[in-house]
Amino acid sequence: MDTDGAVVVGLLGCGVVGGGVAERLLGKFSAGSARMRLANVLVRDLAKPRTPTSVHPHLTTLVDRVLNDPGVDVIVECIGGIQPASSYVEAALRRGLLVVSANKALIAERGERLEALARQYRTTLMYEAAVGGAIPVLRTLRHLAAADEIQAVGGVINSTTNYVLCQMEDGLSMNEAVRAAQRAGFAEADPTNDLDGIDAAQKLTILAALAFGTWLPWKSIARCGIWKLSEDDIAAARRLGTRVKLVASARRDSGSISATVGPTYVPLKHPFAAPRGAENAFLIAGRHTGPIVIGGRGAGREATASAIMGDLHDVLANIAPPSSKETINA
Amino acid sequence: MDTDGAVVVGLLGCGVVGGGVAERLLGKFSAGSARMRLANVLVRDLAKPRTPTSVHPHLTTLVDRVLNDPGVDVIVECIGGIQPASSYVEAALRRGLLVVSANKALIAERGERLEALARQYRTTLMYEAAVGGAIPVLRTLRHLAAADEIQAVGGVINSTTNYVLCQMEDGLSMNEAVRAAQRAGFAEADPTNDLDGIDAAQKLTILAALAFGTWLPWKSIARCGIWKLSEDDIAAARRLGTRVKLVASARRDSGSISATVGPTYVPLKHPFAAPRGAENAFLIAGRHTGPIVIGGRGAGREATASAIMGDLHDVLANIAPPSSKETINA
Repeated sequence: MDTDGAVVVGLLGCGVVGGGVAERLLGKFSAGSARMRLANVLVRDLAKPRTPTSVHPHLTTLVDRVLNDPGVDVIVECIGGIQPASSYVEAALRRGLLVVSANKALIAERGERLEALARQYRTTLMYEAAVGGAIPVLRTLRHLAAADEIQAVGGVINSTTNYVLCQMEDGLSMNEAVRAAQRAGFAEADPTNDLDGIDAAQKLTILAALAFGTWLPWKSIARCGIWKLSEDDIAAARRLGTRVKLVASARRDSGSISATVGPTYVPLKHPFAAPRGAENAFLIAGRHTGPIVIGGRGAGREATASAIMGDLHDVLANIAPPSSKETINA
Repeated sequence: MDTDGAVVVGLLGCGVVGGGVAERLLGKFSAGSARMRLANVLVRDLAKPRTPTSVHPHLTTLVDRVLNDPGVDVIVECIGGIQPASSYVEAALRRGLLVVSANKALIAERGERLEALARQYRTTLMYEAAVGGAIPVLRTLRHLAAADEIQAVGGVINSTTNYVLCQMEDGLSMNEAVRAAQRAGFAEADPTNDLDGIDAAQKLTILAALAFGTWLPWKSIARCGIWKLSEDDIAAARRLGTRVKLVASARRDSGSISATVGPTYVPLKHPFAAPRGAENAFLIAGRHTGPIVIGGRGAGREATASAIMGDLHDVLANIAPPSSKETINA
């Protein structure tokens, strides 16, 4: 915390999502952002243009300037990928810093180990932004799992494939739809991770861990992508009064957990038929609560930055003394 | 807390919802319930049969036995109505006890005053169960409002009217549909509060308070009930490709807040068309997050008791030392 009592945030990465976080922390519009201050921001290239431009004085290529900044309270990791993100997150946790990560691949691969490290160093790892963009699905799931027995969790959890499938419903071929998703910023140059269901499987690993307390290796999840779907499949789904969606689903049956990711014909009335474009929809089924559905924007700079800001506000509520009651009261 | 470190819960009221809470606290199936213990339970009639029967040894007709029990940590209020619930809740807050209420009328009428009292006595008032049954909509809204600027909040938030309107879509008259809702336990003997939109207006007051920080008097909300709807209105909605729903909506426009409750023709693709029977659906629109939709069971013993159990688990996470990190970590 700085001398004004603001929470000091160090940022790793300043791409699409990291830039969105910097913009919120430097801007005037976020509720409560006056109580958070952006410190140093790690990038690989100081000369590259950034949005917002006001982030430039914060940039550094030296990771120590972020992780070993003596005033810093929280590290936000927006690098993506396993390395060097994993080493940086571990180093921050070992320093006892709070860590907020948007990195689904990292959490799916190493979440169990990183959670244990956070407990060992009496700090906290948060990663709402790793799943569901702006939708606060992980905190909802944690809350429901604390008070109820979760029987199933899943949904339409990959924005790229949903965008592609919606474009195909509008008459595009698979290749055209993928190019449209790339132009819209919802697919990467190499879209394999999304189209093969890897991204969805990684997110399902995280959902299942929070629902059932078991970290399934994402590679063990039965998985089928959407690559091979054709216009004929989309038309067949329509004739049946359904939509093709990439559905990820994990369920506990008599002690064992089954998890699958694959294209599914979803009836129009089912909540999984609702997401359009980059939207996501999640279903959490508790023994006592029954099904809870939550949906919204699953991808994009603003949506993902919002999830990180939500985690940062939880930090604020928990470490800043005037708000210490907020977690249960406000 | 008792000598085993369990949180001790006193209960006011043991009707449909209170009985559901007692069942969860006395039962074996709730995750973590071993760390909560049911103390005394206030009822008016000791002789009346209760579900679960195991609650009988806990019953008392003396409110002091609940509120002034020296071991008690939390008071759960499931009486309903303004008095005597208001006096009991005030007395509990003045003792510094945590209070969990399921009482939408009380919170809508006196929420601002009770929140101030809780702050004054450095304790916490929780009321997730007052709105949306099993759906954790209030905590989702609080969380989004902390990190973003909420522009609108609303939804299909009254289960009775939704049940009635769904029955009318299936061919029943208004009177037949109301009787069906009464038989199913989703309408009271006098259904005026629900059918006139009073219940929805009270819930909208609570939603708007959390979204915008302003407690609108519920009586000031422009309100139209569903009493006068006929089979013809339902048929007209169908011809237009819509459904009639009782929609509650609050919006901030250039500083002022507008709030309305009334029957609305909702397009089939809109999330407010989705709730069937006693289900609810909420939409929270944030400046950065975009629209977040959350839905599920809005009424019933299990659904409402689940929301209270969720609040109690937040208490557990915040006052029981081994779990003090759970609010942001677990």
